[in-house]
Order: sequence, then C-alpha cells, then structure tokens
Amino acid sequence: MHKGFYTLKWEGDSVSFIDQRKLPVEEIYVSCRTYKEVAEAIETMVVRGAPAIGVSAAYGIALGLIKSTDTEIYKYEAGFKEICDIIGATRPTAVNLFWAIERMKKAFAEIRGRTSSVSEISAHMLSEAHSIYDEDINVNKAIGRAGSSLVKSGMNILTHCNAGALCAAGYGTALGVVRAAFEQGKKIHVFADETRPFLQGARLTMWELMKDGIDCTLLSDNMSGYMMSKGKIDVIVVGADRIAANGDAANKIGTYSVAVLAKHHNIPMYFAAPLSTVDINCPSGGHIPIEERNLDEVRVINGKSICPPDAKAVNPSFDVTPNSLISGIITEKGIIYPPFESGIKSLFSGGDL
Amino acid sequence: MHKGFYTLKWEGDSVSFIDQRKLPVEEIYVSCRTYKEVAEAIETMVVRGAPAIGVSAAYGIALGLIKSTDTEIYKYEAGFKEICDIIGATRPTAVNLFWAIERMKKAFAEIRGRTSSVSEISAHMLSEAHSIYDEDINVNKAIGRAGSSLVKSGMNILTHCNAGALCAAGYGTALGVVRAAFEQGKKIHVFADETRPFLQGARLTMWELMKDGIDCTLLSDNMSGYMMSKGKIDVIVVGADRIAANGDAANKIGTYSVAVLAKHHNIPMYFAAPLSTVDINCPSGGHIPIEERNLDEVRVINGKSICPPDAKAVNPSFDVTPNSLISGIITEKGIIYPPFESGIKSLFSGGDL
Repeated sequence: MHKGFYTLKWEGDSVSFIDQRKLPVEEIYVSCRTYKEVAEAIETMVVRGAPAIGVSAAYGIALGLIKSTDTEIYKYEAGFKEICDIIGATRPTAVNLFWAIERMKKAFAEIRGRTSSVSEISAHMLSEAHSIYDEDINVNKAIGRAGSSLVKSGMNILTHCNAGALCAAGYGTALGVVRAAFEQGKKIHVFADETRPFLQGARLTMWELMKDGIDCTLLSDNMSGYMMSKGKIDVIVVGADRIAANGDAANKIGTYSVAVLAKHHNIPMYFAAPLSTVDINCPSGGHIPIEERNLDEVRVINGKSICPPDAKAVNPSFDVTPNSLISGIITEKGIIYPPFESGIKSLFSGGDL
Repeated sequence: MHKGFYTLKWEGDSVSFIDQRKLPVEEIYVSCRTYKEVAEAIETMVVRGAPAIGVSAAYGIALGLIKSTDTEIYKYEAGFKEICDIIGATRPTAVNLFWAIERMKKAFAEIRGRTSSVSEISAHMLSEAHSIYDEDINVNKAIGRAGSSLVKSGMNILTHCNAGALCAAGYGTALGVVRAAFEQGKKIHVFADETRPFLQGARLTMWELMKDGIDCTLLSDNMSGYMMSKGKIDVIVVGADRIAANGDAANKIGTYSVAVLAKHHNIPMYFAAPLSTVDINCPSGGHIPIEERNLDEVRVINGKSICPPDAKAVNPSFDVTPNSLISGIITEKGIIYPPFESGIKSLFSGGDL
C-alpha cells in the first residue's frame, strides 16, 4: 500500500514485520514463526505504535492457535489462554493490545459455542485477525478524512513520535491526517520531533514521509518550543496510546511538554486515534499505567554511551496530556471536541457526535 | 581544582583544553599552539560554554601575540587586529567572547600608550589573560555563594546543557550554585537534561557531577515536563550565553521550552551568569543573534544517521527566554529579581542591588 514497504503482513505460517529498530539505515523484514516470537517483537519494539501492536497481537494469537499441537479441545483452550497472557504482558500502556486480545477472546467464545473442532476454531480466529487488520486500515483512512478538514494548504504541522503507517496496519493516525490532506492536494509541511529516547520521529516519521514525497523537516525535541515562538507551527497532530473516558490522553513521552508549549502559544493540538484506543473503563489519565523501559535506551545511542556508563537515568516511555490541553480527538467517527467525556460516552453508546 | 581535570590551562607556549567532544568516553587534552588552533577549538566546540569561550579567547589572543614574528610595532598591531577578528568570528551568540576581546583590546590600548616594545606588550597581554582566567573562577564561586541560598536541603534541581566547571575556567555558573550548596552540606539531587543535539547535559554535566560525587540523574529533554508534572523538580538553574539589558536571556536551545514548562508548573527558574554575560547594549532578546550550526549535529549521533541522510533539519543552537519567565538572575554581585532592567542598570552603573 505504501511505497515499497509494509508494517506487518500475514504470511500463511508466520507474521512478517519490518524491523522498525533498524530503520532508516536498513530495511529488514523479520519473520515470526511462533506466537512467542510475535510477543518478543512487540516487547522489543520490532513493531510499535498502538494500532500496530493491536493488529500484531491478533495475528500473534491466530499464529499460536494455528501452530498449536493440541488436538484435544480443553488443552487447546488452555493454550489459548496462555497465548493471550503472554502477548498481554508485553507492553502495558497501549490499550489497543488489550482491546485486540479482548476481541479475539470474544471471537473465541463465539466460535467455541458452535464447534469443538480446533481446526475450525483456528480458521475462524485467523479470519478475525484478518478483519482486525483490514478494519485498522479503513479506520485510519476514516481518521485521515475526518482530520484533514483541520489542515489548510500552507500549514506547518508538528508531530511527535511516529503515528504513521508504521504505527498501524497502514496509513497512520496522525500521519493519516497528514496523508489525507496531502492526497487532497494541500501544500503542507511537517516538522517531526526526533522523539528521544527511541528516536521514532527521526527514524520512522521522517523515513515514511520522505518515502511518500511529503515535505518534512527534523527537529530535536527541545527545538519545538523555539519554533512555536517563531510562528513556524500552525497545528499539532499526534497519536495516542490510551485515551481515558474523560479525554486525558497517554502518548509517547514528550507529548505532554508539546501540549503545554502549544497552550502557551495558542496553537491547536489534536490527538488522532481509533476508538479502540479509548479505554472507556479508565476514568482519567491518572489511572493509565506508564511503562518504564530499559535505562540504556536513554544512556546509549547507536551503540555508544552518551553519559558515564554507570549514570542514573529515568525512562518513562509515555506521559499523559490532560484533556484541558487537548483541542480535539480525531477518530474514525469524527472529531470529538471538549467536553470530551460526553462526546466519548455518546460514541460508545452507539450515538453520534 | 576539580577532581582530576581542568577545562583549559595556559602551558607557556600553548593552551591546553580537555576535548569536550570526546567526553565522557575519553578524557583527552588537546594542545593549541597557535591562535588559529584556539579559534578552531572554540568553533568546533572542543571548548564551549559562555565563560570558557571568553577565557579561551583571551588566551588565544595572548598566544597569537606571543607567537607573533612581527617585531615592527605597526605590523604587530595589525596582526593583533587580525587575531581579534578571527577569534571573534567563531561563535556569534555568547557575548563573553566579545566581552573578552573588548577587554583585551582595552588592555592593548593601555599598554600601547606606554610602550612600543612588542615583547613588553605581549607580556602584558598574557598577564591580562591570566587575570581574566583567575577572575572567572572567583566570579563563578561568588555566583555559587549568591545562588546557594535558593537551594534547600532535599531539593531536586533541574539543569539544562552544561553550565558547570567545563563551561568556565572552573567551578561553573549554574553548577557553581549546585557545588556551593553541596559544599555547604545540603543534600541535593540534580536532574540533567541530556540537551540534544550536542548532548552537553548527558556527556558533560553528568560526568562532572559524578566526578565530584554529586547525586544526579539523566533525563531525555522531553521528559522534564513529565517530571515537573509529577512534582519531582523543585527549582531550575541554568546558565546563559547572553543576557539583554531587559533580562531576556539566550541560552542553549531547549531552555525556553523548560522555562514555559516551569511557568506552567509554578517552579522557579534561575539563570546563573557572570556580569560579563550581560550585553548592556542589547535592549532585548530579539536583538541577540542565534547561531545556526551544522545540520549533521541533529541528523547524526555517535557517527550514525538517525534519519534518512538527505533529511531536512534545523539546528538553532540557542533560544531566548523572555524576562517574564525568569525568576531571577544569579550574578557574582547577587541575585537580580524582576524588574530586571533597573537591577541590571544599577549594577552596570556601579550601584548595588
């Protein structure tokens, strides 16, 4: 779908991922032949980005079931539970992981009510994973269409981390908005925060935008405030890893700082995410678990220490932007504006915006 | 003076610098045997930090004169002008460079009025450079004493870039405040922003604090907002590269973002700098030139691209924090509080605070 790359793909008896840790220097695909390899790919960030983690989890579960050697239904069922537990233990913040697991569990219960044939169940579960994959792309395109109305020709858009084709089955959430505006012929320019410590902005966002011919410029994270003060940023669009019922949004570390800076400069800031990113059972951002990752992600870059090797460091992988700093949440059902709680509630009870 | 290292040292017929680009992985000293080598050391950031740049410029000028082969006074004088021009063209933002050059020019004019002997002039100029060096250390210690009253035991102090012993002849400005509090037996902890793109916080601040046994923790730049929101930062102390007459302060890129975040969280933010950093002829921050450095500082880390090699990037090396975001300016004469204009004016006309 994109120019010469895909984020993840079902390959019949394996799941193939572009190794996002190697980009942009090398474009290498990794083939995961067991569900444990898929879990490891999620945990070590071969694949990352909330929607992509959800789709990967679904395929990982399908793969685990297809490769199961348990022909006895109760053992097979216990195996399914273990697969879900192991995949669910990979990354705590992105709710899409748990959303996908829940959806696969529902599909399992549904088909199990109709059959005890493990091969039938496995086939059904793979078909459910394919649906999740296909829906993800459609949802991203719908997010893009909804959000593109916010982007006018001539605008400079700031984004943080990578909420692009690489964070999803394809197209992207925040970069879905960018892509839709670009496809509509609008003349736009993207500033990409490099996004330390993992550098997703520098490595992934710049790579995929340049691949699609979208004009873009790289910033160190600490330059965005300066660029805002110089009037160089018109709008900010980022993704989200989990959105609470009140609209508080967890996203890659640094997003909160961008939001405070945006508020100070009166620049609108939007979060683009599928409804599967909304955790309706989570009342507010304070309840979202923040993943702490290995400190060497902070201390080491490109294989070399940037500080004394025994330096203390912190590595919170996400932060939470309170709803008061959010201009709108762009979903596949349209843009939710403040007050978010009622808009979110309405969408989740089958209503409109 | 510090535990096993010095920033720069006069060596009789050369100036020796610790190569700050190699820290903390290697502790290597570079010997500059000509003034052009000193200019290059400043430009390529072997030595950096506003006060250290000033002291280096003074020694560079003295070295150039001592090594001059012009015995004829008018040629020697023309040579002096050229030395000042070349050293003055290295880095545009830090005003200490121009302050030191001006001071050396005054010393030259003064001795020239008394003698035409080039060797006498050279000896006098070296003595002036030594004075600048010695004064810098004393001034830093006075800044430390003045600022230490702001730091209570148990406090967590955030700093950005390196305003430490490595940014000056020794002791440091912002880290001078930290050192003075530490020497007074206060139990303190420092959070150091890594400070992309050049990573002075990770490489230099962490290194020199750990060397002196001061408790410290490394942060990626985009984590400081999150840490503030969690109540982990009590006070912020940074250095400055040029302070305008109204108190607007230029410092390493990212300082402005920290200041906006500090304001949002009601955390006091101080700039520590010698009066030689105040440019009394510069009415406000908008008049301070912002150095743009090589884009590969942003695109390449530890010798390896972090983005597609042909990616566009920006690299403003400094930003300006408006006086409205500054709680106080810590100088060797005491702490200037708002309104800064009158306080600065008073100090420059020989008055008190």
